[in-house]
Amino acid sequence: MDYTKYKQYPPVKLDNREWPSKKLDRAPLWCSVDLRDGNQSLPIPMSINEKVEFFNLLVEMGFKEIEVGFPSASETEFNFLRKLVDDNLIPDDVHIQILTQSRDHLIKRSFEALEGVKNAIVHFYNSTSTLQRKVVFKKSKDEIKEIAVSGAKLIKEMSKNFSGNIRYEYSPESFTGTELDYAKDICEAVMDVIKPTPTNKLILNLPGTVEMSTANVHADQIEWFCKNIKDRDSVIISLHAHNDRGTATAATELGLLAGADRVEGTLFGNGERTGNVDIINLGMNFYTQGIDPKLDFSNIDKIVEIYSRCTRMTVGPRHPWAGNLVYTAFSGSHQDAIKKGLEAHNNSDSHIWEVPYLPIDPSDLNRVYEEIIRINSQSGKGGVAFVLENSYGYKLPKSMHPEFSQIIQKITDKTGNELSPEYIFSTFNSEYLEVDGPYRLLDYTINTSSLETKISAKLEYKTDKIDISSFGNGPIDAFFNAVKKVISSDIKFHDYSEHSLTEGADSKAVAYIGMEVKGQIIFGVGIDSSINTASIKALLCALNRVE
Amino acid sequence: MDYTKYKQYPPVKLDNREWPSKKLDRAPLWCSVDLRDGNQSLPIPMSINEKVEFFNLLVEMGFKEIEVGFPSASETEFNFLRKLVDDNLIPDDVHIQILTQSRDHLIKRSFEALEGVKNAIVHFYNSTSTLQRKVVFKKSKDEIKEIAVSGAKLIKEMSKNFSGNIRYEYSPESFTGTELDYAKDICEAVMDVIKPTPTNKLILNLPGTVEMSTANVHADQIEWFCKNIKDRDSVIISLHAHNDRGTATAATELGLLAGADRVEGTLFGNGERTGNVDIINLGMNFYTQGIDPKLDFSNIDKIVEIYSRCTRMTVGPRHPWAGNLVYTAFSGSHQDAIKKGLEAHNNSDSHIWEVPYLPIDPSDLNRVYEEIIRINSQSGKGGVAFVLENSYGYKLPKSMHPEFSQIIQKITDKTGNELSPEYIFSTFNSEYLEVDGPYRLLDYTINTSSLETKISAKLEYKTDKIDISSFGNGPIDAFFNAVKKVISSDIKFHDYSEHSLTEGADSKAVAYIGMEVKGQIIFGVGIDSSINTASIKALLCALNRVE
Repeated sequence: MDYTKYKQYPPVKLDNREWPSKKLDRAPLWCSVDLRDGNQSLPIPMSINEKVEFFNLLVEMGFKEIEVGFPSASETEFNFLRKLVDDNLIPDDVHIQILTQSRDHLIKRSFEALEGVKNAIVHFYNSTSTLQRKVVFKKSKDEIKEIAVSGAKLIKEMSKNFSGNIRYEYSPESFTGTELDYAKDICEAVMDVIKPTPTNKLILNLPGTVEMSTANVHADQIEWFCKNIKDRDSVIISLHAHNDRGTATAATELGLLAGADRVEGTLFGNGERTGNVDIINLGMNFYTQGIDPKLDFSNIDKIVEIYSRCTRMTVGPRHPWAGNLVYTAFSGSHQDAIKKGLEAHNNSDSHIWEVPYLPIDPSDLNRVYEEIIRINSQSGKGGVAFVLENSYGYKLPKSMHPEFSQIIQKITDKTGNELSPEYIFSTFNSEYLEVDGPYRLLDYTINTSSLETKISAKLEYKTDKIDISSFGNGPIDAFFNAVKKVISSDIKFHDYSEHSLTEGADSKAVAYIGMEVKGQIIFGVGIDSSINTASIKALLCALNRVE
Repeated sequence: MDYTKYKQYPPVKLDNREWPSKKLDRAPLWCSVDLRDGNQSLPIPMSINEKVEFFNLLVEMGFKEIEVGFPSASETEFNFLRKLVDDNLIPDDVHIQILTQSRDHLIKRSFEALEGVKNAIVHFYNSTSTLQRKVVFKKSKDEIKEIAVSGAKLIKEMSKNFSGNIRYEYSPESFTGTELDYAKDICEAVMDVIKPTPTNKLILNLPGTVEMSTANVHADQIEWFCKNIKDRDSVIISLHAHNDRGTATAATELGLLAGADRVEGTLFGNGERTGNVDIINLGMNFYTQGIDPKLDFSNIDKIVEIYSRCTRMTVGPRHPWAGNLVYTAFSGSHQDAIKKGLEAHNNSDSHIWEVPYLPIDPSDLNRVYEEIIRINSQSGKGGVAFVLENSYGYKLPKSMHPEFSQIIQKITDKTGNELSPEYIFSTFNSEYLEVDGPYRLLDYTINTSSLETKISAKLEYKTDKIDISSFGNGPIDAFFNAVKKVISSDIKFHDYSEHSLTEGADSKAVAYIGMEVKGQIIFGVGIDSSINTASIKALLCALNRVE
């Protein structure tokens, strides 16, 4: 691989760099470009109906600025905007942004499309990069500047007859390939035409059309621009990062530290090539730092569903905050830490979420806890117990975890596959709950005083009937003694636990009894609406599992 | 969404911050953790055979340090390492890294697994984070430190009997959740046992086990650590970023600026939750800055294939450098700039790659140019022409682009779908090349002198035969004049171009002729081994398309 074909992106001469010492303390202004940049990079662009559904989703999530397309470029995009207007789909507080090249006939057509929009942002651009000036436009710096200036003049002129509120946005496209001082120069020339004020600001969008440098160099560029552009308080500095180097999210965050006010991006980072910056990723990053993202991601699965259906793109399993594996642990040590962390969190008075390996509470996004711990050959005993408790309510005593997890591990080692909670439960069921012989309980009576309990029970062993009885300090002890007397003197009581399985007075109890047989611990499980019967069944289950 | 559940990650007190002014100038030491961190987070972990195939791929790509698993944790991982040794699969210059918790029985078992390895890195860790100390281990700082120290002692002891070369790596796991000074303290305690020297360095790996902060804060942590750890020249500082906030790549790059030497990561960012940092992404970022990545990605499709098959994960279409849409443009303006940029690049003497919207030459990764420009309703005339030229060798004259692209646009507007190069070519074929009437060429003769050309041709029109003849300054002019005389006086010659379609003396020529009819330009295309016949056919084709 011939790396000498490429050269390093030049650093920025920036004195008194400030951004690395700053903190993010509020969400930026968000602008969705899903319906434009996102749409134009799809193998199969969205239909008008799909665009309408997507637009409604964006509104529902809380976007107040939505770029709806390039209406001068095609009939479909023109008609889509007309549909939004004609069908009254634009809330009063949502700004409709349209993109147009800085060319006369396109600007005129754009204004036709905007007719009837209450709040419009007219976003005009031309490419200003060194490379495009040379190989695409073959024009000088001044000629390129003139394209922007004459576009600005026409837009200003056309907007006199526009009935709604109008704001302006200018992009020196391919900003990251443009000399910084020239980008400032051309933006200031546009400002001279638009004449923005602190109450009527011009949006200057500085696109990372192609991501070319490490995120810190991008931040340097933004800080330089924010410090050097004239009338800083009359402009909104907007970022529009692409993800060519896989660092669009970081570049945007550092760009915001460096002084930018606004972010253009898309859901899940759809967009040209590697995509635009992912606004959900960014917004969730704010959220998890205790900062209001000003967007609602709480129904993430619905967002994923509409996105996937309309764009025909997918959201990968490891996609930050949204992928279906990002709140999942398979490995034993992670599962153990999560389990203990969740217990500690549930027992704590703190409002603050703190659980190892789970940077957020998945329920914030309406994700279910079932996803957190999944079982395969990498998993440990804590994980298996978590699944049984979380999905089926069985709280296996810690002493029983090794026995059952070994049963599960044998299966995962053999098959190599992940086991579903259903499969784990059905294994638990057949291993414990469905054990029904050779010993079976036919009937029993218990007489209890404050001093002693007496039990008499009728058992069936294969085809035989057995009567057993004994005393103890409680029903379990008494039954245990009776079993030892008649059936096997070789067993020792190890441990016992019991809990209700369901809520209410008619709830069932589940009992777990560990029994020591020749130095080995064997567990049994029993369920009944009576805690006595459940315990007796558990002991018989253990006995049967020894046989 | 209740953002008050979360709190902001605290900043680092760092004086005289240096990293933002530094430049990356060489690739770090790479260590693949695909077979460990990557594998343990898969719903279906790799089988031993899949691991072997993956290991061989890593070796082939140039990895010199490969973490092969956690051999003390399961039989599968133990057996995999034994297979590598027994089957002699480890090249002499590759270090085999194994992970173990800092616990006696696990360390001992790990050394059994390593028997026969020539170059080993024993990587031991324990979680040092504030949260895990509190909720998982319920131990004091000193007790947690003692775990690391006693592990280090045992490893040092065990390695006395180890036959190969051995190096050590210690990770204060969940470094990003650990107080910086405590992380330094515990690492220095481990150093006191291991006693590293500048020629026998200890790897100190500082894992972003969970990514918790913006990338700049991570860089501050690394710079602080590099500046404050004792005997800096006796340790290798290693990064191990996870991608929870979607900024692992940037965090790693900034961490390298901040002084780190080494990077642990995986192919395509497989790994726990959102994954580990993606080494291919990072390596390609170096490559595209003119820095030798010291890894070979040139056969990216093979890497994707083996990765996808073994892990059962996919590489998304927008995945940096590797996704199948990342070198693709559908939109007209991008296509136009790429087309012009490629032309300029091909006509230039410069060795440096510079093409708008194409940060690298896709052929570096053995990607084909066919992917670059794809056609749907967002595409422009330049794109359609590019596809015909690039996939089929037809160089349509610029004047013909609008006519043919309108034909294509009608189809994409109607179907909403992307059109394949095959479909575009078949449309070109049926629109031009297969036009075979009503006028057909039966025969012709040409007599040429330096002054004048005379043509006589026999045509068929439906069932009639027509003889035409005329003079001109060349065969096309002469034929045109003949047609005007006999068939239609209403036509005007507009433009003509011709090129060979294939190579060699027996190659065919294709001619394009634009003809003006009532103010409208109509094109015709003709193919023949004679340039004269091709031209005549092209003119007849245009004539037939008017009919």
